[in-house]
Amino acid sequence: MSEALLPDSNGFDEEAFRREARAFLDWIASYLSRVEEFPVRSTVTPGALRAALPAQAPEDSEPVSALIEDLEKLILPGITHWQSPNFFAYFPANTSTPSLMGDLVSSAFGVQGMLWITSPACTELETHMLDWLAGLCGLPARFLSSGAGGGVLQDSASSAVLCALLAARERASAGRCNEEGCRGDLVVYGSTQTHSSLDKAVMVAGLGRRQLRKIEVDAEFAMSPAALRAQIAADRAAGLTPCMVCVTLGTTSTLAFDPLPELGALCRAEGIWLHVDAALAGSAAVCPEYRSLLTGLDFADSYCFNPHKWLLTNFDCSCLYVADRNALIGALSITPEYLRNSISDAGAALDYRDWQIPLGRRFRALKLWFVLRRFGAEGLRSYIRGHVALTARFAEHLAQDARFEIVAPVHLNLVCFRLRDSNERNAALLEALNASGRIYLSHTVLDGRYVLRFCVGQPQTSTRHIDEAWALIAATAATLDP
Amino acid sequence: MSEALLPDSNGFDEEAFRREARAFLDWIASYLSRVEEFPVRSTVTPGALRAALPAQAPEDSEPVSALIEDLEKLILPGITHWQSPNFFAYFPANTSTPSLMGDLVSSAFGVQGMLWITSPACTELETHMLDWLAGLCGLPARFLSSGAGGGVLQDSASSAVLCALLAARERASAGRCNEEGCRGDLVVYGSTQTHSSLDKAVMVAGLGRRQLRKIEVDAEFAMSPAALRAQIAADRAAGLTPCMVCVTLGTTSTLAFDPLPELGALCRAEGIWLHVDAALAGSAAVCPEYRSLLTGLDFADSYCFNPHKWLLTNFDCSCLYVADRNALIGALSITPEYLRNSISDAGAALDYRDWQIPLGRRFRALKLWFVLRRFGAEGLRSYIRGHVALTARFAEHLAQDARFEIVAPVHLNLVCFRLRDSNERNAALLEALNASGRIYLSHTVLDGRYVLRFCVGQPQTSTRHIDEAWALIAATAATLDP
Repeated sequence: MSEALLPDSNGFDEEAFRREARAFLDWIASYLSRVEEFPVRSTVTPGALRAALPAQAPEDSEPVSALIEDLEKLILPGITHWQSPNFFAYFPANTSTPSLMGDLVSSAFGVQGMLWITSPACTELETHMLDWLAGLCGLPARFLSSGAGGGVLQDSASSAVLCALLAARERASAGRCNEEGCRGDLVVYGSTQTHSSLDKAVMVAGLGRRQLRKIEVDAEFAMSPAALRAQIAADRAAGLTPCMVCVTLGTTSTLAFDPLPELGALCRAEGIWLHVDAALAGSAAVCPEYRSLLTGLDFADSYCFNPHKWLLTNFDCSCLYVADRNALIGALSITPEYLRNSISDAGAALDYRDWQIPLGRRFRALKLWFVLRRFGAEGLRSYIRGHVALTARFAEHLAQDARFEIVAPVHLNLVCFRLRDSNERNAALLEALNASGRIYLSHTVLDGRYVLRFCVGQPQTSTRHIDEAWALIAATAATLDP
Repeated sequence: MSEALLPDSNGFDEEAFRREARAFLDWIASYLSRVEEFPVRSTVTPGALRAALPAQAPEDSEPVSALIEDLEKLILPGITHWQSPNFFAYFPANTSTPSLMGDLVSSAFGVQGMLWITSPACTELETHMLDWLAGLCGLPARFLSSGAGGGVLQDSASSAVLCALLAARERASAGRCNEEGCRGDLVVYGSTQTHSSLDKAVMVAGLGRRQLRKIEVDAEFAMSPAALRAQIAADRAAGLTPCMVCVTLGTTSTLAFDPLPELGALCRAEGIWLHVDAALAGSAAVCPEYRSLLTGLDFADSYCFNPHKWLLTNFDCSCLYVADRNALIGALSITPEYLRNSISDAGAALDYRDWQIPLGRRFRALKLWFVLRRFGAEGLRSYIRGHVALTARFAEHLAQDARFEIVAPVHLNLVCFRLRDSNERNAALLEALNASGRIYLSHTVLDGRYVLRFCVGQPQTSTRHIDEAWALIAATAATLDP
């Protein structure tokens, strides 16, 4: 081979590593400095990349230069640029230099953090970072590891809600589901606006989606406590057992906030596991002025938010907190002989394999540690505040154009809007904007109305991008076929 | 702040990025060149790292130098060095320069590959790499994406077996579990040696672990087809429905191979979903001389192996193949409005969110692409062959020392051995070896006997490390208290 492939059994050649790694670093630096130049949404057609690739893996080694050339030529056209300052679709998926470096160090360690002993730092730094974040966001003390609770990193809010549901399922069935299997008698509650990951969790956990109640929402798309109370009563009367309520702080479609204080008190009174999902919005709680959004969180049995969305930490990094860690561990723990060790047997340390579905786990806390220290709490707050201000600016533009309406309360970093026109015209507007390559938005449907979503959260997004996006939207709306 | 934190709303400063990134690269290069110097198993006591960390996140930004200093001072002592050439415990968890770089580029793109449209290259390269690997390993054509099957990357073999089980569950229940919930009438089969992730999957999926049959094994720790046949008949007679059989090619404890041709034919005849788990051993199939280990794989409905164990690709990278992708998608698919798009609606492309539990997913195929191209098929083969030869060398050392016995057939890269002595003496030997810091092994229990496991698979491991490990084992055995 023309270039050293390291490490290998000849040991580790530092210089060869540096040479190869710097070539990729330079390419990444070049990409991130050009990211605004590319069409935000990829313009390739299905199958185009595969058609350009060899049908089989190469027999012999290829040089670094060939890989970098193909990144540029083959991969970039097929990228939808989530790091573009003009990406306003779905939700933000942040990266930052400290996060990239934390993740790289994690890859280089290559440790498996399934047990404390298989890398104590991996487990302890994770517990500690979750406590740091709890402090930074003003979370209730019940979620701290110093008490009966604690936090763990999951790959996503989907996995977090599944783990919470499994703990709730075992509590509601007194451990029967794990031992004997489910029986179709447990009921789960969300709203019509709850994320689809709850549907998926209910299916995966064997509860059956007929047992998922989608409670109606009010005019601001927040769950109705009265409707929840009535549904719980009806289910109990039918001989069913309420298992879990999922309350959302910042729904996917409109960033609506379910009324947690009322819903939480109801769950407490009914003895039902309360899971709170703040996947996107939760990061805002690093700012004291947004902490009131979490009011009522002391009622929660579990809580999730995703630093990989809006806290400069690249995917995957989803925080799951539980008030009673033994409930989670009890639902997920299994100890075969080949994983036994004296530290675990003595209960002297946490083993995070018992807090998640997979056995293996990487050292994800490093990137959080780097982000929290490099930005500092003040850096993170100013970043969140900047995006909220940019979002308000976009909403002001909209409010001054009578062709448009804002269709849901604007919270934090999301604006839901539409032309005062047909669904077809709104869908055509969205497609024209996205096809332009200059910005990327996504959509939802609310009360039968097609709605455009404009979500701010990329690190490079500035006032200029907001103003240019608005100018493009206004101009495009004027040119739509009648 | 003293150093630029990028990217931010002032745009991207290439030079600042390069400066920060190179500082971490240099530290990583230094770590990997020193990895052999550290105690393989961490020697810290529980709580030591946490006691050394501040109780709260910093308010202000800290410099890169502080992070690197703490990596050295605080983190390294808490690392169990999976990349050490003297790590022989559990299973290998490989990294390599091309893999690290592929993962770094993935982090920098920061794309969410949940839908084809959210980055077509992420989806298409993954499908293509899974096809490349299928070709390289000689997998049956039914697992190729050109037919009804295809492959997907999961985080771990645990998640893979859970996804396979969910597909099997829905097939066996005609979709009833997803809709109405489980009923306790489905049965799952493994052996007494099957990985504990099957137990966990059965619990998570709501089937109940009473419905998991652990079929007895023969003297070589392989599942008995006769016992499986008898158990299936008994379950059917009891009115139960067989749902899935999990066959292992290379068990965790001893790398035993269940007799796939016979077991597969039985599953086919009985109409039971067959999942084949070759998490560790599967990578060996890149060598034609080891492909016979996969004989009978055409009977399988799903197949899993982990390049993140023994194919130079860092965690997470677990390959799951299915023969009928619609069975998997049907079990896991949900489409809310906010994820709808014209490409998906037209069925023109795959959306991998429907092949896994989480919604979000990172661009994991890049690291596989880099590994396959930088090493080439021949490079990977010589790497696997080297480890198998080192393992044979270790077994030869053992065979020449009458104090020891090898307690299971040696396959590929694992040797299970023990002193011809009490369990206590063997446990004491293991602890003495691991406490020395010079090597790290793990253990299992077979037929009530405490057994040491010596697993070869780290890229830097060479003949010298094998010979030194053996010398240490032989010498330590001689010095144990009587």
